[in-house]
Amino acid sequence: MSTSVGQSKVRVDAYDKAAGRAKYTDDLCDKSALIAKILHSTIAHGLVKSVDTSAAEQIPGVVKVITCLDVPNYKFPTAGHPWSTDPAHQDVEDRLLLNRHVRYYGDDVAVVVAEDEVAAMQGVRALKVEYEEYPFVLDAQEAMAEGAPQVQEDFPGNILAHTSIRRGDLEKALQEPGLIKVEGWYDTPTVQHCHIENHVCFASMEAGRITVVTSTQIPHIVRRVVGQALGLPWGKVRIVKPYIGGGFGNKQDALYEPLCAYLTTQVGGRLVKLECTREETFVSNRVRHAIRTHIISWVRPDGAIVARKFEAFSNQGAYASHGHGVVAKGMGAFPQLYPCDNVECDCWSVYTNRPAAGAMRGYGIPQAMFAGECHIDDICLSLGMDPLEFRRKNLMPVGYVDGFSKNELYDDTFNQCLDRAMEVIDYQQKRKDYQNQTGPVRRGVGLAVFWYNTAVWPISLESSSCRMVLNQDGSLQFQTGETEIGQGCDTAYTQMVADAVGVPFEDVHVVSSQDTDVTPFGTGAYASRQTYIGGFSIIQTGRLLRERILNYAHELTRMPAATLDLVDGKIVRKGDGRVLMTLGELATEALYSTTNSQHLTAESTAQIKSNAYSFGCSIAEVEVDIPMCKVKLLNMVNVHDCGRLINPALAEAQVHGGMSMAIGYGLSEELKFDARTGKPLNNNLLDYKLSTCMDHPNLEARFVENLEPTSPYGTKSLGEPPACSGAPAIRNAVLQATGVAVDRCPITPHILFEAFKEAGLITD
Amino acid sequence: MSTSVGQSKVRVDAYDKAAGRAKYTDDLCDKSALIAKILHSTIAHGLVKSVDTSAAEQIPGVVKVITCLDVPNYKFPTAGHPWSTDPAHQDVEDRLLLNRHVRYYGDDVAVVVAEDEVAAMQGVRALKVEYEEYPFVLDAQEAMAEGAPQVQEDFPGNILAHTSIRRGDLEKALQEPGLIKVEGWYDTPTVQHCHIENHVCFASMEAGRITVVTSTQIPHIVRRVVGQALGLPWGKVRIVKPYIGGGFGNKQDALYEPLCAYLTTQVGGRLVKLECTREETFVSNRVRHAIRTHIISWVRPDGAIVARKFEAFSNQGAYASHGHGVVAKGMGAFPQLYPCDNVECDCWSVYTNRPAAGAMRGYGIPQAMFAGECHIDDICLSLGMDPLEFRRKNLMPVGYVDGFSKNELYDDTFNQCLDRAMEVIDYQQKRKDYQNQTGPVRRGVGLAVFWYNTAVWPISLESSSCRMVLNQDGSLQFQTGETEIGQGCDTAYTQMVADAVGVPFEDVHVVSSQDTDVTPFGTGAYASRQTYIGGFSIIQTGRLLRERILNYAHELTRMPAATLDLVDGKIVRKGDGRVLMTLGELATEALYSTTNSQHLTAESTAQIKSNAYSFGCSIAEVEVDIPMCKVKLLNMVNVHDCGRLINPALAEAQVHGGMSMAIGYGLSEELKFDARTGKPLNNNLLDYKLSTCMDHPNLEARFVENLEPTSPYGTKSLGEPPACSGAPAIRNAVLQATGVAVDRCPITPHILFEAFKEAGLITD
Repeated sequence: MSTSVGQSKVRVDAYDKAAGRAKYTDDLCDKSALIAKILHSTIAHGLVKSVDTSAAEQIPGVVKVITCLDVPNYKFPTAGHPWSTDPAHQDVEDRLLLNRHVRYYGDDVAVVVAEDEVAAMQGVRALKVEYEEYPFVLDAQEAMAEGAPQVQEDFPGNILAHTSIRRGDLEKALQEPGLIKVEGWYDTPTVQHCHIENHVCFASMEAGRITVVTSTQIPHIVRRVVGQALGLPWGKVRIVKPYIGGGFGNKQDALYEPLCAYLTTQVGGRLVKLECTREETFVSNRVRHAIRTHIISWVRPDGAIVARKFEAFSNQGAYASHGHGVVAKGMGAFPQLYPCDNVECDCWSVYTNRPAAGAMRGYGIPQAMFAGECHIDDICLSLGMDPLEFRRKNLMPVGYVDGFSKNELYDDTFNQCLDRAMEVIDYQQKRKDYQNQTGPVRRGVGLAVFWYNTAVWPISLESSSCRMVLNQDGSLQFQTGETEIGQGCDTAYTQMVADAVGVPFEDVHVVSSQDTDVTPFGTGAYASRQTYIGGFSIIQTGRLLRERILNYAHELTRMPAATLDLVDGKIVRKGDGRVLMTLGELATEALYSTTNSQHLTAESTAQIKSNAYSFGCSIAEVEVDIPMCKVKLLNMVNVHDCGRLINPALAEAQVHGGMSMAIGYGLSEELKFDARTGKPLNNNLLDYKLSTCMDHPNLEARFVENLEPTSPYGTKSLGEPPACSGAPAIRNAVLQATGVAVDRCPITPHILFEAFKEAGLITD
Repeated sequence: MSTSVGQSKVRVDAYDKAAGRAKYTDDLCDKSALIAKILHSTIAHGLVKSVDTSAAEQIPGVVKVITCLDVPNYKFPTAGHPWSTDPAHQDVEDRLLLNRHVRYYGDDVAVVVAEDEVAAMQGVRALKVEYEEYPFVLDAQEAMAEGAPQVQEDFPGNILAHTSIRRGDLEKALQEPGLIKVEGWYDTPTVQHCHIENHVCFASMEAGRITVVTSTQIPHIVRRVVGQALGLPWGKVRIVKPYIGGGFGNKQDALYEPLCAYLTTQVGGRLVKLECTREETFVSNRVRHAIRTHIISWVRPDGAIVARKFEAFSNQGAYASHGHGVVAKGMGAFPQLYPCDNVECDCWSVYTNRPAAGAMRGYGIPQAMFAGECHIDDICLSLGMDPLEFRRKNLMPVGYVDGFSKNELYDDTFNQCLDRAMEVIDYQQKRKDYQNQTGPVRRGVGLAVFWYNTAVWPISLESSSCRMVLNQDGSLQFQTGETEIGQGCDTAYTQMVADAVGVPFEDVHVVSSQDTDVTPFGTGAYASRQTYIGGFSIIQTGRLLRERILNYAHELTRMPAATLDLVDGKIVRKGDGRVLMTLGELATEALYSTTNSQHLTAESTAQIKSNAYSFGCSIAEVEVDIPMCKVKLLNMVNVHDCGRLINPALAEAQVHGGMSMAIGYGLSEELKFDARTGKPLNNNLLDYKLSTCMDHPNLEARFVENLEPTSPYGTKSLGEPPACSGAPAIRNAVLQATGVAVDRCPITPHILFEAFKEAGLITD
């Protein structure tokens, strides 16, 4: 019956995006908009004593200056999480629209609204700020130390949160004789999402309500946050999300929408636009948490894991944003991926004077996989054991059930993924080939697996609504609160809706833009939840619409509805297969009938109380130039079991993008800070070494399609997983090539220089 | 229980419209749009033999030239009627996007699309058209004569349609001895709507579909017409309607949306804007039908009507547009308003070489009332009977039921309206005062009543859908396909929704703009149907939403849903009146519940199979300067029984606007044509004497609120009625003042000069 799902349909937005017709936020902003520019703090920590706005206010074109001394005193959270009515599950409220207590170099101090950009920037430059400077701290563990500068008043010791997992009895287990102890510290960097389109939004007021058009992943959540930040009933806020040029989690936060919404209220409801520069995007949006992880494993000589200890220190930066969820998700993966009877895990999210860390593709899993999968190879090195064999022996077994999420591993997915990967890069053969190399240039292969949990249940609410509207020609519009952010979900949804209702792909018109006034509630694009979660409401709403259609077909044909089917846009009598009418004929009659006029639509909410594991692996092959301290990536393959593929071509593209991100994470990307001032050093795309196609080998993506039984379409997450296992695979390849176990990423020449020196491979 | 309906709430759009924040079509058009300008025919009738586009195509900035020789051969209808799947009830398809056979001075011959307006206009001027000229005809009865020029190929004799009503036996009735025969011919002019905002639209293509943003009253109908005109499935078309600056029926037609939609397909989907000048609006949009009516009445000396004959010749102009419906509605009023046993009615819609006549406020009733109510005073003149007494004696009696519409007169509404009117202008006292005047300046009072049928059932489909979406704060959005066109229906709907659901007025956020992709189906603003028809779906959908809310309240409170009520945004236990929670608390919990998350919305279609009479009257008091042939309107009152008033202040404003239109109709407005060329002579607001506040006395509006029992809110039509009885009241006042029975409107000095001369009141 299924005809659309599983086919590599051309993206529904392909032509418009290629031809430049697709409209993004800035395209939609009227040219009459006032322009807002932000003054950012030029110290890493301190108190604004005064802001002299007089010179700025004299500049022609400057309409309004708002400083941190003016803004309303509503602390608000920014994380793009579904809300909870339980205060214990609400996100931390630790910022105002502008902050008098500045907590990082780049914090928001004041804003100038002007008739044009030039006047706004002149206004910002004309502001004179007097600071009282405080000592600052950039490192998470240093921030935990006694006497460290206090970043947030309400969090002594700078600890935003600390959580633990305990299983078995570690102390008792360690009494077993003959255990081999392997210990490592692993560091991952602060990186930025580097989506193409910087965050931009514009706001205005109509009928006493505020409308914000914004480049966001989460329009319905932003509506709530704007209401919270301005102390307004949430229904007074309307958020519109057009096409966006990527987000990768940075736009899973309320960024400047609350400020922009506030500004329009200060200029009589006039249109105000706030557009981030790339420099602002790097520093004053969100970054990925730098996490330092400490792992100790006690293993038997045969590779059996007896006990493990895990500690992670997550650098939260100045504001809570997504907060502890990120490192906690990473820690959650640890005891599941390699189950072990005796485990002690602890993780801390720690405020520092860095930019606020938020959501980023993978949400703690890239950090956890880097630490965990490097550590597995470190164990293998200690044991002299083959890393593939070790993994096959210790990875989560078929039938494994997690007690908290109730997720189950239904298939022998890890072995299948590893087998598929080796069809591209024969890991074992190459490992043999690359043994015992000498000389300055050496090769290696490395392997890493990953674990990823689809969506956020049971930690948070999972629900999704959608609406379908039948047109006279038998085509239909589809609306949902879940959002297209470049990942292709509009196309996947179109396929899913086509099959759910029984119409051709071409007859589904997805309403891409979300408008919280009219779009069914959905929390947006994050947690790789779109096809899994959206699938529930699509299949449910499609059923409701089919039922209404077939009941109407009964009216028109006198056939019992149960004997009728809707196939490929036609009403078919099941008994003899006869096409009784087209859906277009039915829809036209239904709308215009003078006896029984019906506008055939359907809308429903699906609440999702299940979840699904997503798994896969990466194999990387590298060539390391030891004297040059340079790693060249020769080959890379990612294999994913994300359940059924809705659209294989899009899935492959999704994986390619994630692999690129993983390559940058492994080899080149890091946002650096000046230790003396806390100032960001490379907040631009020239100095920040974003991975590009110039850095990629041919990227190979493969899939294992074990249909996820809990999922309406058999799918599970694919959006974030491709970014999770690449970096440790590269690191493990470097380890094979050189014997040097690098303890951090990105593995830049600077890092390798130090590591190779220490290992005696090179000398000063 | 009702708290909002019946109150004079401030318009929901008042502040935005007053402050200039409200967005109209042109405000929303991106400045990068290509500009389309139309070449209109400069002859009244003929054939385009060739169009030389070469010079135009050389002009820098000209992107595309399309002529009547290029356009697709899909004939399409333009009338803003609901569609019918029965071909016999479909509107006439008699035009292409551009017409080679040009049928009036101003017909659409070619269009130039250019980068800016200057290039587009230069391009239009550079087009060279060669015509074969045909004879033309401007008068409807002349067009029916043998040998008249044929305007439309498929309609020999130029008769678009002819319908009749027969009741009783006229011939037999006339055998009664002693009957007095009164005969008259009455002429009404071609007038134009003169809404503030000229028609403007812009179109572009995304994802293979065409979006047209347009100043229209009928977005869902325009979607269908664009599909028909371009030969596209209707689902490939999306229409968006922002605020519009008036329509009065002109925008109850697909005007240039089909052409604009076609143009974007010819320039690769680029944005194309087409904006009418005022001159184009006058001639190349739609006008009101000029109708000539012939009435003969046979009455007894005591004023009893024995038999009547009615003939109306409706000047359709060059294209069918709304066609025969207009004059047919007028004819339908005739035997109902003054029921009589023996009636013969005939009406003809006749193609001529004038601009196409379409819908305009009143839809045939102003013409019919002018003829009919002038004729009543002519009868009274013949009988020497008081016009008020004659009307009280002969008007439709309480309990009257129309066999076709099943409408019933439930109340003694005519007498009540007349009584209310006389509280403002004491007709009978003044009639006495103004008897036997001599001298050059004389005064008179005149009276006229009207009949108006709400909405279009049973002639056409009547259905309406709406959707309500509950927000977390207990406010809600309301969407409907029926449209705000300046008349205030957004505000009336807000009041109706507030009461239907049980929330404060302030908590209803009406989604003013219609977008056919997401707005529930509704046919739009016409036939004074908005509150009557919309009320059905509002009350039905409000009930559905209440039910969902109270069921959810049951979940939260464990009180049986039947014991709960929703009052003023609060969940109340009926037994003891205790407020259990606010709707906002319920809505927040419902959305974010981790056990039972529900996005509470409701949507439904109501099909309406009833209809309601709307009645009223006007009294006018005039002073006529006989030597100057000038009428000064001294006082005017309109009284309406439109059922329950949703918003008294808005109702009064509605009536004031209609009275202004009636004053123009009675005294000054007429679009004139040059008899030798067919060229319009006064297609601009300088030469066309639109009625303005300078021409008005104090306008008095009064109401009789007989709740309409078929209506969910007790309402019936008020939008068009105020324009229906003013002109004949003025004419009858002139008749009393001067004894001269003018047979046409507007009653300009030129007309009076001829009439007074004929009556011997003045000499050359």
